[in-house]
Amino acid sequence: MKKISGGVTAAKGFRAAGVHAGLKKRKPDLALILSENLCAAAGCLTQNQIKAAPVLITQKLLKSGRARGILANSGSANCCTGTKGHKTALALQKEAATVCGIKPSELLLASTGTIGKQIPFKTVQKSIPALAGRLSPKGSQKAAEAILTTDLVTKSAAVTVHCGGRAVKIGGIAKGSGMIDPSMATMLAFVTTDAVISSGALRKATRRAVQGSFNNITVDGQMSTNDTVLVLANGAAGNRSLQPGRPGWSAWLKGLQFVMQQLAEQIAQDGEGASALLRVEVRGTGTHAQAHQVAKKIANAPLVKTMVTGRDPNWGRVAATVGASSVRFNPRQLEIRLGGVPVFRNEAPLKVAQKKLKNLFSGKSALIQVRLGSGKGEATVLGCDLTQGYVRINAKYN
Amino acid sequence: MKKISGGVTAAKGFRAAGVHAGLKKRKPDLALILSENLCAAAGCLTQNQIKAAPVLITQKLLKSGRARGILANSGSANCCTGTKGHKTALALQKEAATVCGIKPSELLLASTGTIGKQIPFKTVQKSIPALAGRLSPKGSQKAAEAILTTDLVTKSAAVTVHCGGRAVKIGGIAKGSGMIDPSMATMLAFVTTDAVISSGALRKATRRAVQGSFNNITVDGQMSTNDTVLVLANGAAGNRSLQPGRPGWSAWLKGLQFVMQQLAEQIAQDGEGASALLRVEVRGTGTHAQAHQVAKKIANAPLVKTMVTGRDPNWGRVAATVGASSVRFNPRQLEIRLGGVPVFRNEAPLKVAQKKLKNLFSGKSALIQVRLGSGKGEATVLGCDLTQGYVRINAKYN
Repeated sequence: MKKISGGVTAAKGFRAAGVHAGLKKRKPDLALILSENLCAAAGCLTQNQIKAAPVLITQKLLKSGRARGILANSGSANCCTGTKGHKTALALQKEAATVCGIKPSELLLASTGTIGKQIPFKTVQKSIPALAGRLSPKGSQKAAEAILTTDLVTKSAAVTVHCGGRAVKIGGIAKGSGMIDPSMATMLAFVTTDAVISSGALRKATRRAVQGSFNNITVDGQMSTNDTVLVLANGAAGNRSLQPGRPGWSAWLKGLQFVMQQLAEQIAQDGEGASALLRVEVRGTGTHAQAHQVAKKIANAPLVKTMVTGRDPNWGRVAATVGASSVRFNPRQLEIRLGGVPVFRNEAPLKVAQKKLKNLFSGKSALIQVRLGSGKGEATVLGCDLTQGYVRINAKYN
Repeated sequence: MKKISGGVTAAKGFRAAGVHAGLKKRKPDLALILSENLCAAAGCLTQNQIKAAPVLITQKLLKSGRARGILANSGSANCCTGTKGHKTALALQKEAATVCGIKPSELLLASTGTIGKQIPFKTVQKSIPALAGRLSPKGSQKAAEAILTTDLVTKSAAVTVHCGGRAVKIGGIAKGSGMIDPSMATMLAFVTTDAVISSGALRKATRRAVQGSFNNITVDGQMSTNDTVLVLANGAAGNRSLQPGRPGWSAWLKGLQFVMQQLAEQIAQDGEGASALLRVEVRGTGTHAQAHQVAKKIANAPLVKTMVTGRDPNWGRVAATVGASSVRFNPRQLEIRLGGVPVFRNEAPLKVAQKKLKNLFSGKSALIQVRLGSGKGEATVLGCDLTQGYVRINAKYN
């Protein structure tokens, strides 16, 4: 596996573009990703009971396992917008599909931004010809910009993997920042690959890779109404069709998961207002699900997050958070490490030189490790700290 | 029922005091509450699996249903402090009991402050004679000061109720501020009454009143290791012994619950960094427990809290939070009101004049009302907003 540049247009036969369509004040807010031919398509969508219009539309379309492209906007989530919002989404889909010469049902949709805000159809419609006109095999960066909300940086990753002698590319873009606590997928992430793969196998691979990437991050414990991960495979690499257990499958799946992990980590790192990446490792539970639950609870705990903000090794807050979890454990077996150094074991604090303790959390990342017992369950969750910046951003979002 | 002053020493036969014992830099940090005679005693303690030494000791003592007083300190939670911390707690209990001429087993304990920090026995020991010497029937305010941590104000409430011709008093003090999300009780709250009541009936009343008060508040979703609510009834009022269903019971229980609600509201209002009290009312669920779960989720959601901080009526964040709850509902039935004004119904935003919308959240309190369906479950939770102040306090706690 080799890291390459190119993001969502790294794979052969994909073009992308991003333009300003009037949803945001000045910045790009409308993105299009298009394959030269029909792709196998799979996705993971939010588990929130309140789902945005584009999520409901894409959910239906994914049943066919086929798509040509993705139309995505920032600036409005098109959620809680009633029948009108639903109609606007369908009208924009039809408009863009017509301009691109494809069927509306081949164009998947995604939106992000403020909930309850209608997308002004006529305003956005006008930008669609320009958007289609700018489609380019080097358009990943522009598309990545157009899906951002409060993100500070674009998120992009790509790799080449070798599947039975053929070079296959996998690449993607994502946006994150706030309202990030996916339970099945996260905010927006679009991944393309030129692999030959059936839509059934692609669906399986997508689910597995999302489990091992986007589902392990959190910014603020807030599951969005719009979380969308989409994967398109157009077959341009000409490899032998990938199937579980067959040659090339595991190399390709590793590549897919790696790209998603890279995007997920970039999302956690660029969490709203974040000054540090928080890595929480939990082990010793009965199951992976239990370890994951405890790790999420730690990564979402405001007092743990602010302790990282202050680079203050106040591990008691970790103990209190773990104890408040519904995962049962024996307090006598609880062990806590900060920055790799044991600080609590056998129900008592361990002696750590004050100077060393102060340095456990410095720099741009913080590591918290917790052992709850002797079970084989373990999980890692990536999060970020909670800063005055997060409050500033979210108390003045409009 | 009549509101009176006097806090935890409002009831006949109770004295209290607070002194600086060296756990904090300058402020009072050691409190004592003492009854002139043996009381019926009941309490609710944290459900956190990691429990502080004083919680474990008090838990045992409460089995007898009898106590004379409470010794409480701030500045150290005496939690995760191993055998040494446990021994220190017992030694201080013995010391104070001896000075007061009571049995150590009659003195309940409570602590709040940093986790993992040992209480310096010799330093605190020295202050105990002075503490006992200052016990006064007007000592409530001093005791209330001595249990504060990052609280800005003391919390106190008291009432007189009439039980079968006799005036009975109920009063208490509390502290809150951070790590507030009780699941059975909250931080420290001490309530005294001069009612005549058996310890069995007191236990029942305490549990019920805590359900209807402290369990409905949250500051930051962080359940403490030290949550303690203690109620002492010394019988000095000479009423006929209170029993469920008998005369006076419901008047007295209402009084107890009122005092606890007042204290709970004061805790929410003085949440760390809070600039507004948040009141969340949820109805239309199948059960009370479901309504309570959704209301807690809303009151703990960082994006809802920051929307209150910015006085920004961005109700989409409420919809997203409700949708992410594990309580199932039909999105078509979801209704949201802000400040009493309907803003979302039938899956679409309602038209509210922009000016009116801006004013829904002004002032010092914010009301969010959510209806999920036609069930009879309903619940109210009090919380507060999330400010830069909260982050500032918790990123520099030590």
